[in-house]
Amino acid sequence: MDSTDLTRRQFAARTGAAAAVTALPATALPASPAAAAPVTASPAPPRPTADRETCLAVARALLVLGDDNRPLVPEYRRILLGGGLPRSSTARKKVLVLGAGPAGMVAAHLLREAGHDVTVIEANGNRAGGRIKTFRTGGHENADQPFADPKQYAEAGAMRIPGSHPLVIGLIDRLGITRRPFHYVDVDPSGAPRHRTWIRVNGIRARRADYARDPRAINRSFGVPAALENVPAAEIVRRALDPVRDEYSTRRPDGTRVDKPMPQLLEGWARVIQRFGDWSMHRFLTEHAKLDERTVDLIGTLENMTSRLPLSFLHSFISQSLISPGTAFYELDGGTAVLADALLDRIRGDIRFDRRVTRVHTGDGGVTVDTVSEGRGGPVVRERFTGDTAIVTIPFSGLRHVQISPPLSYAKRRALTEVHYDSATKVLLEFSRRWWEFGEDDWRRELDAMEPGLYDRYRKGQVPPDGRHLGRHPSVPPGHLTENQRTHYAAHAWVSREQPEAAEVIGGGSVTDNPNRFMFQPSHPVPGSPGGVVLASYSWADDARRWDAYDDEARYALALRGMQEVYGQRLEVFFTGAGRTQSWQRDPYAYGEASVLLPGQHTEILLDMRTREGRLHFAGCHTSVKPAWIEGALESAVRTALEVHTG
Amino acid sequence: MDSTDLTRRQFAARTGAAAAVTALPATALPASPAAAAPVTASPAPPRPTADRETCLAVARALLVLGDDNRPLVPEYRRILLGGGLPRSSTARKKVLVLGAGPAGMVAAHLLREAGHDVTVIEANGNRAGGRIKTFRTGGHENADQPFADPKQYAEAGAMRIPGSHPLVIGLIDRLGITRRPFHYVDVDPSGAPRHRTWIRVNGIRARRADYARDPRAINRSFGVPAALENVPAAEIVRRALDPVRDEYSTRRPDGTRVDKPMPQLLEGWARVIQRFGDWSMHRFLTEHAKLDERTVDLIGTLENMTSRLPLSFLHSFISQSLISPGTAFYELDGGTAVLADALLDRIRGDIRFDRRVTRVHTGDGGVTVDTVSEGRGGPVVRERFTGDTAIVTIPFSGLRHVQISPPLSYAKRRALTEVHYDSATKVLLEFSRRWWEFGEDDWRRELDAMEPGLYDRYRKGQVPPDGRHLGRHPSVPPGHLTENQRTHYAAHAWVSREQPEAAEVIGGGSVTDNPNRFMFQPSHPVPGSPGGVVLASYSWADDARRWDAYDDEARYALALRGMQEVYGQRLEVFFTGAGRTQSWQRDPYAYGEASVLLPGQHTEILLDMRTREGRLHFAGCHTSVKPAWIEGALESAVRTALEVHTG
Repeated sequence: MDSTDLTRRQFAARTGAAAAVTALPATALPASPAAAAPVTASPAPPRPTADRETCLAVARALLVLGDDNRPLVPEYRRILLGGGLPRSSTARKKVLVLGAGPAGMVAAHLLREAGHDVTVIEANGNRAGGRIKTFRTGGHENADQPFADPKQYAEAGAMRIPGSHPLVIGLIDRLGITRRPFHYVDVDPSGAPRHRTWIRVNGIRARRADYARDPRAINRSFGVPAALENVPAAEIVRRALDPVRDEYSTRRPDGTRVDKPMPQLLEGWARVIQRFGDWSMHRFLTEHAKLDERTVDLIGTLENMTSRLPLSFLHSFISQSLISPGTAFYELDGGTAVLADALLDRIRGDIRFDRRVTRVHTGDGGVTVDTVSEGRGGPVVRERFTGDTAIVTIPFSGLRHVQISPPLSYAKRRALTEVHYDSATKVLLEFSRRWWEFGEDDWRRELDAMEPGLYDRYRKGQVPPDGRHLGRHPSVPPGHLTENQRTHYAAHAWVSREQPEAAEVIGGGSVTDNPNRFMFQPSHPVPGSPGGVVLASYSWADDARRWDAYDDEARYALALRGMQEVYGQRLEVFFTGAGRTQSWQRDPYAYGEASVLLPGQHTEILLDMRTREGRLHFAGCHTSVKPAWIEGALESAVRTALEVHTG
Repeated sequence: MDSTDLTRRQFAARTGAAAAVTALPATALPASPAAAAPVTASPAPPRPTADRETCLAVARALLVLGDDNRPLVPEYRRILLGGGLPRSSTARKKVLVLGAGPAGMVAAHLLREAGHDVTVIEANGNRAGGRIKTFRTGGHENADQPFADPKQYAEAGAMRIPGSHPLVIGLIDRLGITRRPFHYVDVDPSGAPRHRTWIRVNGIRARRADYARDPRAINRSFGVPAALENVPAAEIVRRALDPVRDEYSTRRPDGTRVDKPMPQLLEGWARVIQRFGDWSMHRFLTEHAKLDERTVDLIGTLENMTSRLPLSFLHSFISQSLISPGTAFYELDGGTAVLADALLDRIRGDIRFDRRVTRVHTGDGGVTVDTVSEGRGGPVVRERFTGDTAIVTIPFSGLRHVQISPPLSYAKRRALTEVHYDSATKVLLEFSRRWWEFGEDDWRRELDAMEPGLYDRYRKGQVPPDGRHLGRHPSVPPGHLTENQRTHYAAHAWVSREQPEAAEVIGGGSVTDNPNRFMFQPSHPVPGSPGGVVLASYSWADDARRWDAYDDEARYALALRGMQEVYGQRLEVFFTGAGRTQSWQRDPYAYGEASVLLPGQHTEILLDMRTREGRLHFAGCHTSVKPAWIEGALESAVRTALEVHTG
């Protein structure tokens, strides 16, 4: 690869990847075509698409490299994990930090430790952490008890922390927070992966391990062509993506991958960005991987790609490359919010809650920030803050409604206006026993103790689906199941004679084509509690927005029904009636799960999202190439703290 | 064009349309590049893409043709406008109609008139009409008075009816409902178009007519290249789309278009569907029209394409072809809900309100439909309905959560799961005077009567933006502006010395790059009211979802601020404090504005959405190729009534 100033498609062509690609010269507007050949391409001028330098810059952002291609993470780790910002002779600054998510809290702490005067302005009345949010009794957000068992808690937001994320893992350890494995794949009591959770699609059920051994029944149910009917969905995805991964990494004989050395790593990623930066995942799978629509439906359903097919190929590709069955994940003892607690404790004197930013003005004198209180049920109050500089961590979805004067640059305004935020919704249901860990003996014991023969009647599908046993196990505490819930449940109850055997899994999750889509069991028991909270539905985009339209009573009945289709009717006896829902689209300060870019946005706007604008610095996971991950927020926190401190 | 069984891309090549297009033989994969060119495709079988027959069938659906290519609209009109369903000897059937939108109400009426026994089941407790919804005092929905002036009303849903839609126009006239022009473009008092509404983007303001005459300042503000800087956005779009339109229509010397005769019309549309069915609008504009990203941003912002760039090219192309400045639109005297009223009146004895469908079961004995009531604040009740057959008009976004047994076909289930519904949100604000019709003399009179010199102070930008005059004009009735609204307003108020001259427009709408995006003034006064309700923001997709996160008090302050940026600060004196918001995404029974398809969905799922499944028939605008339009709902109503009656 040489370094001449090639245009995007020329770049691709030079690397040899464009053999089957339209490498069109591209000039002016479509000339009016002749009648005989009407849909023509136009003799238009070359599109000034992402050039080599832009693609390299995006690749550097992805790999967290400096302009000189030096890895920044070692320095960031040193700063973050106790070393602090460099000693410098810059004057003490008054810094406003807008937003108390992990980016804002970490940047504030670093700057205060370096001697600056910091104020963190947070819109929520009583909660820090942003999209780190744990439904739990008490905690800094003074939440009501969310579940029937006051010991129970569950994650509304960040729930799994990849071991491959060095900043957040380092910070957790440095803060003395206990982490333990998050079982993305279900395990046996020794912790070894088992792949026993369910796939339930097109009316067919299989354990994941059985599907991997013989995928034919399920693949045929989608109409997958013969050549692929014996290939598991994950393997189809791997084969489709592996040639792209070959650009920057090498596959070892054992199937794992190792990055190429620099600069091949950087240049390989730049080629991928240039080649596919404009592509949606749908286009990649159909045009490049040549998959038929039935196979796309199979992998979309099983491998969670359907909801993001129209979005950027690069986003899903990067995510898929990170989240593989081999990735080690961690969770935090007590919930991810213990990390937010610890970050908040370090800046508690410097935070102002209940102040939503409405206007930011910068001038020669500094930065002025106008805010309003939530005022839910009471009067709204205004407060103005002033400082020398500001770090803006507000998601761009929300920042769109903040008036900034004088106006930001065209590039930043365009990014603010156009960056796509995806929807994501979690529906959590509480059970008085961890029935998913039960074997058949456990089920027989518990059900027959309720009513002799009940176990057999459930197994044979002879219990009417009218919810007569809903929450009737003696372990279910009274007072949480309402009559309206029972009515909704009976109206929605799953009518099926097919009753599966006991799941008998620890952790892991199942997948279905019903509206629940993805389900996760807790990886570990909550000490002192025989029950557990299940993530009954985790969904994105259109799937998520459909859950949002229900009120809680109907939503929990529906979510329970969806679980029963996968795990069997009998689990109803342990439902406590308590549930929690987190719609990140409806969160009044997040306005979406994360910035999930559209085709073209990686090269067109990503780099503009993070650039400094005078006294304003921009942080938050959306300014990284790890949206929705704490790691991305931390990268941005150190970057902006350095900008402010040394700038 | 011959009739051999060509694959999709071969079809395009044969028609001569692929001269500058990647005319890949569909079976060939990109040759596996050598190691130096690692991004390879996988050795998977050819993708069975949409074939010629599928594309012709989609084109028939678009053009409302029968399988024999005969136009169906004349027969549909005859049935709809008094002729009724054909006399037939079929037995009287008990028909359940799920949903009382226009499709359901019309199908129900036709079937009852033909002698069948019909029950319409509607989820809303007190409203029929579906996405026909007027905020008004009284009406069949017994709504609270929505605005300060009880005479005022405004549209939450359907607001403009194209004159080119023969079924709905015919039905309106047949029902004796008064229609009048909806001024999509602002007019002078004689009704002639003036194009005086504002474009306000990148801090630049221009009247539409001035922009059309000299687009350079605005085009340059987007960084549009020199070759296009003197071409108005609408003309750039026209030039980009015209070659596609040439496939099926001919441009007359005066610029208007006339469809080609059959079968060229049908075959032309089929070619367009085959060529671009998989494409997003973003891909079309960049790869086919060769527009640079800055020009895409220009036309996206001014011509309302940005929010739908990742969605199907065909959807936006069809819409753009329909909604041109030359299209005549109508509105109904009293609001679009008068049409829903009239449709409801014809079936009032046959409708059951407050029954949301949760489960549909079909068997040899007929159809069973389980429902629940809304039960908001009270007990939820269940009710079961039975019939011989059912017409399902529920949007697929909502039907996804309805249990249907035995399961529908794979194709239907896939369509139900994957069809994309877009978000759309309208924010309506009421003013005590129609200030947008004012000239400067009117402003001077009204403002100086409030306080001598106030007119001049507003013109010079000397009135503090703290809302001191918010709703202070004597014509504003007390009791609607709350203190919290005033506080939000002051926190959000627009800080600018730039104060534009009087808009002086009747009807029409303005466009801005601020969050309001699109604004429409009422086309006609409400008799007896000196005020008016403005559609202060009409937005889609991400733009819409960002408005949804606010509570009303904050949202109306924000919407007012956005209007002030476009029309000037002084309009604040007439704001009554009353507003209404319609988020179709959040509507508990619509779950979205309409089915706006993703790339590929026209050929992959559209035709499956309408196919009958045993005793179940499927109607609603989503089963037509006119989603979101009443016309599409009416096509489906007649189609399914015929299916039931003659089937």
